[in-house]
Amino acid sequence: MTDVQKLKAALGDIKTEDNPAIVRQKSRDFFWYSPILKRQLDHVTGDLIASPKTEAEVIRVLETCYAEGVPVTPRGSGTGNYGQAMPLSGGVVLSLAEFNHVKSVERGRVIVEPGAVLAEIDRQTRPGGQEIRMHPSTYNTASAAGFIAGGSGGCGSIRWGGLRNIGNVLGLRIVTMEATPRVLELRGRDLMKVMHAYGTNGIITEVELPLTAAYDWVEVIAGFDDYMRAVRFADLIANQDGLLFKEISTVAAPVPYDYFLRHRKFLKPEHSVVLIMVAPHAIDPFQALAAESKAEILFRSDAATDAEKKGLPPLFELTWNHTTLRGLRVDPTITYLQVLYPFPTHVESVEKMTRIFGDEVPGHLEFQRFDGNVCCSGLPIVRYTTDSRLDEIIKIHEDNGCPIFNPHRYTLEEGGMKQTDAVQLAFKREADPKGLLNPGKMIAWENPDFDLDSDKVYLFPGLQQIAAE
Amino acid sequence: MTDVQKLKAALGDIKTEDNPAIVRQKSRDFFWYSPILKRQLDHVTGDLIASPKTEAEVIRVLETCYAEGVPVTPRGSGTGNYGQAMPLSGGVVLSLAEFNHVKSVERGRVIVEPGAVLAEIDRQTRPGGQEIRMHPSTYNTASAAGFIAGGSGGCGSIRWGGLRNIGNVLGLRIVTMEATPRVLELRGRDLMKVMHAYGTNGIITEVELPLTAAYDWVEVIAGFDDYMRAVRFADLIANQDGLLFKEISTVAAPVPYDYFLRHRKFLKPEHSVVLIMVAPHAIDPFQALAAESKAEILFRSDAATDAEKKGLPPLFELTWNHTTLRGLRVDPTITYLQVLYPFPTHVESVEKMTRIFGDEVPGHLEFQRFDGNVCCSGLPIVRYTTDSRLDEIIKIHEDNGCPIFNPHRYTLEEGGMKQTDAVQLAFKREADPKGLLNPGKMIAWENPDFDLDSDKVYLFPGLQQIAAE
Repeated sequence: MTDVQKLKAALGDIKTEDNPAIVRQKSRDFFWYSPILKRQLDHVTGDLIASPKTEAEVIRVLETCYAEGVPVTPRGSGTGNYGQAMPLSGGVVLSLAEFNHVKSVERGRVIVEPGAVLAEIDRQTRPGGQEIRMHPSTYNTASAAGFIAGGSGGCGSIRWGGLRNIGNVLGLRIVTMEATPRVLELRGRDLMKVMHAYGTNGIITEVELPLTAAYDWVEVIAGFDDYMRAVRFADLIANQDGLLFKEISTVAAPVPYDYFLRHRKFLKPEHSVVLIMVAPHAIDPFQALAAESKAEILFRSDAATDAEKKGLPPLFELTWNHTTLRGLRVDPTITYLQVLYPFPTHVESVEKMTRIFGDEVPGHLEFQRFDGNVCCSGLPIVRYTTDSRLDEIIKIHEDNGCPIFNPHRYTLEEGGMKQTDAVQLAFKREADPKGLLNPGKMIAWENPDFDLDSDKVYLFPGLQQIAAE
Repeated sequence: MTDVQKLKAALGDIKTEDNPAIVRQKSRDFFWYSPILKRQLDHVTGDLIASPKTEAEVIRVLETCYAEGVPVTPRGSGTGNYGQAMPLSGGVVLSLAEFNHVKSVERGRVIVEPGAVLAEIDRQTRPGGQEIRMHPSTYNTASAAGFIAGGSGGCGSIRWGGLRNIGNVLGLRIVTMEATPRVLELRGRDLMKVMHAYGTNGIITEVELPLTAAYDWVEVIAGFDDYMRAVRFADLIANQDGLLFKEISTVAAPVPYDYFLRHRKFLKPEHSVVLIMVAPHAIDPFQALAAESKAEILFRSDAATDAEKKGLPPLFELTWNHTTLRGLRVDPTITYLQVLYPFPTHVESVEKMTRIFGDEVPGHLEFQRFDGNVCCSGLPIVRYTTDSRLDEIIKIHEDNGCPIFNPHRYTLEEGGMKQTDAVQLAFKREADPKGLLNPGKMIAWENPDFDLDSDKVYLFPGLQQIAAE
């Protein structure tokens, strides 16, 4: 058990917080999208929040916690969905939210501190005509390092692929968890050591991202009376090399009408939609394609009146995991999955899953580039009944060649590729020899003998016990 | 026969030129890359050059020529390779080179007059951080309307696909060839009526192009001891969604050493090369991939000394049809082909052709996006011997699933898809009822009964006769 007062004293003038209600709140993310994680993690809380504002302060927190043997779980804005930043064994939650300056903007690149909010980065790069390549639907709150440590892509992935594709992050500074923490600069392939590692093997203190041309993206909602027509239209436009999109997503009826409440005035219950962000100079040719595909244009931000636009969230807040969030606000019993529909059979796979599950698993696709080709990943809504039916739904997807990245698991391996990442494991040995960083998330570290091919769910022995009622 | 003096008088203060030597020079393009076109077209010349500087002057030239029944062949900078702008029946060569202002630059788009030189457009858009999406290797001389009427893609096609992909041209103003010429504005799908139509069905008087982010592209030459290793490396990097390239081209040994004379100091005879333009912020991750593929970096413009760079042409002047040009300067007996290696078997197809032809057809590929995927087209050097062997080489390619766009033909159909373009033919009926625009280039107009599936070569009956020696 962490001696909170001793730790506070040792941290001196570094900002800390030990009010249990606030600590608990800052120990949580959006894990409750999953009924399974909700049961497993709802009681989890840290003992102390430490909020360093500089790399030197990060180093002091780490060397202090290392000396005391206290676990440290880094956190950006807490917008994760699988408990990425939840301190399973308690200890210090290292909040990087206040270590957040944009340090420099150059042509094609920006250097920021870890807690810099993505939307704030763009506010500072846009005057020069530039913006970051991609962002999750939590753009307005998510932090740069949190996105890199816990995210995988988002709006912009239709053009640039995933965050882990080489070139989408240019550089990271990392502090290690050792008696005397080291500062390492990673570039090129070395970045893979820590990307999407949930902060289990180093603390990010600086991020260098590539920038691209900024545009006043036009938001479009195209409506179809049939979901597969929407999917085919999305696939058609996503493969137009001459058209510049930032986002192409499909959502099956009745989800848009039932859950997109502030956009409901543009929708009918039977509308399946394609949600699009397109460059202003591509709107004419886009309209030509929409007319040829008999898409019904339900909303265009560049043509809507101020009255129509009043109170609307940005369109990207209907996409990625905001689709699920909007559903949960209306119907807390739903949940979701994360599916990959591999190229070149992605449209067929979607059609097959749609036919098998119907309204039990209403479709939601995010089109994106993957190894040079356009395919789609899905975050379908699942009308949850039981854990075993959820497992069955997952199995049917996998049996049909659609891998699942299970959002109902808190470990890197089970939520990811279901295999050990030898590079990240080796780097954890180097950078976190005592295993104090974000305990319980890397199975390969906690239990090298665990069989990832079994049907067993990993249960971290260090997970805080649920208090007796 | 055109009455030149009468025509000059009728054109009044519009600039004209009738000096036969100059008229002949301005009636030619780079048709002589082809030994076949060289024989067929070498004697072709117009009767008069007219150089309007405004749309009103274009209209006056067209109405005058229409009244007199004089053919009009439009011309930009004359950088075509198949006689696109050569006046097969004589008459007026309508030079648009002096009608060339950049009219307006906005975020994401530029509006120019037809004769605007591509490099000049970029000179005016670069201060705002923008440049045109793609350009041929004749960037420093080619005109905007000439590129659209006679070109198909170039540097930038690795990112944006071909010029005819929807979105890569935004708008065109067209003047028709009628008693009272009309001015039409084309956008969206209507642009297809005149794009790549060699000016056979309307004269372009204004061009609206999309712009993209401008970078100080880093030029790289990567060397390999085996051509297929070069091809595989090019394919690998072309499919990295997170890396930003403007150009990826491969050239088989011994072409680089033998023909790239000003770059010879970086090359050895056994070097097959990949020619690359990469964004400065992508150079680190690019280098990581190059190291993994054991590419030998022979040249990097950002690392070369001023002494090394002295006298070097820009790297794009080693690519596309400049590869052929550099070959012809050293060995005037060579020629070339234009091949498509369709996705997803493009690398296999290249390997097969390389094995079949060896040094008779040294490889030269241009990687580009095509319907959403990366594939490559080739402009292989051909060590020409006879017309019948050239036909045989073409046939072997086609029999192996590699379509040829024959650069030894002066008609739209034979140099292209070998089929009638019904849209362009219908538009010619509307816009050029007398058939006076660029006669002899659209077989569907000249001889609707000609069988494009036959092995016969079309011979335009109106082609000027070769004068008796």
